[in-house]
Amino acid sequence: MTRVHLIVGDIGGTNTRLGIVRSIGGLPQETRRFRNAEHQSFGSLLSDYLASVGVNSAAMICLAVAGVASGNRIELTNHAWTIDRDELCKITAASEALFINDLKALGLSLAHERSMPPTLLAGTPPRSAFAPRLVVGVGTGFNAALVTQHNALAKPSVSAAECGHMTLVVETETELRLRHFLARGRGRASIERALSGAGLVEIYQWVAAETGQTPAALNAAEIAGRAIDQSDPVCSDAAEIALKLLARTAGDLALAFLPMGGVYLAGSVARGLAPLMPLGGFHDTFIAKGRQTELLRSIPVFLMEDDGAALLGCVVHAQKNSQSFDKIA
Amino acid sequence: MTRVHLIVGDIGGTNTRLGIVRSIGGLPQETRRFRNAEHQSFGSLLSDYLASVGVNSAAMICLAVAGVASGNRIELTNHAWTIDRDELCKITAASEALFINDLKALGLSLAHERSMPPTLLAGTPPRSAFAPRLVVGVGTGFNAALVTQHNALAKPSVSAAECGHMTLVVETETELRLRHFLARGRGRASIERALSGAGLVEIYQWVAAETGQTPAALNAAEIAGRAIDQSDPVCSDAAEIALKLLARTAGDLALAFLPMGGVYLAGSVARGLAPLMPLGGFHDTFIAKGRQTELLRSIPVFLMEDDGAALLGCVVHAQKNSQSFDKIA
Repeated sequence: MTRVHLIVGDIGGTNTRLGIVRSIGGLPQETRRFRNAEHQSFGSLLSDYLASVGVNSAAMICLAVAGVASGNRIELTNHAWTIDRDELCKITAASEALFINDLKALGLSLAHERSMPPTLLAGTPPRSAFAPRLVVGVGTGFNAALVTQHNALAKPSVSAAECGHMTLVVETETELRLRHFLARGRGRASIERALSGAGLVEIYQWVAAETGQTPAALNAAEIAGRAIDQSDPVCSDAAEIALKLLARTAGDLALAFLPMGGVYLAGSVARGLAPLMPLGGFHDTFIAKGRQTELLRSIPVFLMEDDGAALLGCVVHAQKNSQSFDKIA
Repeated sequence: MTRVHLIVGDIGGTNTRLGIVRSIGGLPQETRRFRNAEHQSFGSLLSDYLASVGVNSAAMICLAVAGVASGNRIELTNHAWTIDRDELCKITAASEALFINDLKALGLSLAHERSMPPTLLAGTPPRSAFAPRLVVGVGTGFNAALVTQHNALAKPSVSAAECGHMTLVVETETELRLRHFLARGRGRASIERALSGAGLVEIYQWVAAETGQTPAALNAAEIAGRAIDQSDPVCSDAAEIALKLLARTAGDLALAFLPMGGVYLAGSVARGLAPLMPLGGFHDTFIAKGRQTELLRSIPVFLMEDDGAALLGCVVHAQKNSQSFDKIA
């Protein structure tokens, strides 16, 4: 059993990714993905993981989470786990446990020289490496965060936001019916009600109801898969609607944040639907902003395909924020 | 005839405000407001103003404009004037002519110690003077800008944005019919199509059409005035719809930018409708964001009543950006 420098984790609403960084300046290794539903608590999952990679302690642990901090505890937004800082330090013998918003971790990963280059979907890559970039995450939830870094020596900074709770934007009678379906029992429909894993399932259920069909018990990945292989017209329609809403929303957020360095789509739902983006007029909808169409056209759109990007963001965050890091380094 | 330190101006789509700052560290004086439509060009308006206040030259000129810069010229977004840097320097004998986005000037004014305190509409004033603030301007156009200042010694910074071109957010069949009315001949309806002076007039025309009445030839100020004195039900309905859309949009932008220092409503339309805000459930709509309602409740809402705030922002901008300032000071 060995001691490592840093344990990194990305705790989503559905999956958790873990990795270890053996020494200062290193990259995440032995990264594994786990389904949250198959584990009682984060503590037991972490213990199992560390045993499986032969690590019994670390100097630090840094976790990317979608959650609300209250004192030493984090309540996850989209999963019934509570994460306790003291328990983490006990399990890992770490002297420091850092938390970072999951989308912020994705944003910070963009600033790391070893990050996997994102895939260009549309537009021209930015001329400046330091133009602001907007990460738009569509997974268990939805959010967006602006990444700014003024020059190579400056620390990158990522804005906090709650974009998933903004009002869902509809423009047609059909979309308004969908909005009412998503809002039933809730009083309103936020962006996240449509643009998330659960949202794609609800859009699918609504398309089935609209066309008088009985929906199957499909999850978001299955709906995206059937849309891509064109095996189920209801799935195809649901994916088309989700992509239209995502393109419009990403364009609106681009007008709010002016990320001349690009919009970076991230998260499992964005990745799942990505093969359909070149076909479905995604970019046409993204740029369709009247007098600002040329402005939108000048903002490239990327897809972050690296499922482990948030772990790299944890490395950047730990480097920036560790109390002990300066002493060690 | 005398020489002053700085000439400041705020060129809106409808009105222009001008002032002079006699010496370094001073405030705008002799401020006057002009209707753009009554003047051939900005150059002739500026010459007339300077003659009327007995000033024939200045070291610098700084203008807040809603426009697009191209080389030495600015094309105004909402009025058919072109402003030429060389001509400005010729008229004023200034060695430097600075331009600043009009909303950015409003944002910078908040950071000036002598700015007129905005009126608290709802919520509790922020505990920190350095929490980020969001200026939401509703006048000839619509936009929003985040003002950040990390501490008393740091320079304030204001983000650029094109929020007025984001998609208008509707949630009911009635609002969707209004959206279609605003989108006619344009293909889409942006926020600005509803939330602006021209937008309020179009909402009024739509309410009249919906209720089978012939609209009068009223401007935005007249519609707001009749709604406030309750003399015209069509005007009252139009104002109520505009306030509902503004409250929802301001709440959505607050989720995008998390301005814990407050949302600062500004611009002639926001000021014109402000007397109706306490009555019409404005704050209830602003905070109605599901799970984030408590977050929204913690963000105070202010009204900037100072029509000359952008002129003060020009003073701040000139102090920050003048090449010659450090030498003079």
